[in-house]
Amino acid sequence: MSSHPVITPEQLLDHWQGHRRVTRRLIEVFPERELFDYAIGGMRPFAKLATELLTMAVPIAQGVATGQWVNEKLELTTKGEILRLWDANTAELDRVWKTIPEKRFQEEDTAFGQWKMSGFAMIFYAIDNEVHHRGQGYVYLRSLGFEPPAFYDRS
Amino acid sequence: MSSHPVITPEQLLDHWQGHRRVTRRLIEVFPERELFDYAIGGMRPFAKLATELLTMAVPIAQGVATGQWVNEKLELTTKGEILRLWDANTAELDRVWKTIPEKRFQEEDTAFGQWKMSGFAMIFYAIDNEVHHRGQGYVYLRSLGFEPPAFYDRS
Repeated sequence: MSSHPVITPEQLLDHWQGHRRVTRRLIEVFPERELFDYAIGGMRPFAKLATELLTMAVPIAQGVATGQWVNEKLELTTKGEILRLWDANTAELDRVWKTIPEKRFQEEDTAFGQWKMSGFAMIFYAIDNEVHHRGQGYVYLRSLGFEPPAFYDRS
Repeated sequence: MSSHPVITPEQLLDHWQGHRRVTRRLIEVFPERELFDYAIGGMRPFAKLATELLTMAVPIAQGVATGQWVNEKLELTTKGEILRLWDANTAELDRVWKTIPEKRFQEEDTAFGQWKMSGFAMIFYAIDNEVHHRGQGYVYLRSLGFEPPAFYDRS
């Protein structure tokens, strides 16, 4: 590694897991029913968005690590199920991350058979997509009168 | 530089400017009045959020480049003014970015006299904050019946 990288692999994982901690807190704040039923403007309820995030995080890390891109289908019907899978994926993401060869961040691949981009770009896409949909979740919660978790607190 | 960096400074700038292009398109879609007056759940209208983003992007790049952190105050009252400043900042961000010494991405500093973090963390915060608030803007637009720009199209 250069002595002056923009960001190291360990720092990028920590950054991602920090966002995942905020998203987990947001899921917790949602009342069970509104998590699955409530949305604004024809958009998806937050349970659907959280489920999408779960189908992306570990599969993308795994794809960057191995070149194998596995589409996951998930049907989650309770908040408890979502949170349990979230926590399992937190540990799994830590585990898979360590197996990513450094050159894979810059290597082009075709993610899930359709998106041609470098490894880092795919990982950034996963993080950005989480932040984007979570921003949507903040509006859902506020409109329901609930206080969302602090955006800046990644602990 | 390592031959296998996670991301290079040029790639990070391109990533950021890609997000800024999406945000610019979102500002354009907003009707002038709702840009300034419309919000959900007691949150800020998108003009306020866009203004906040303008006070962050170049000042943060400048702070990482030089160690000088300048708080900007902006009062923008028309969509045209916001878009003109957005475009001016696009060019300015490109210019300032080239002056960032590579070691500053990992160096700790106290941004704006209050946030102690490394340069990359401050830049990631600026990008994440933009994606977060823009996600909020997508909900505002959808709830008004307008189609927001495609999240994945960064061209």
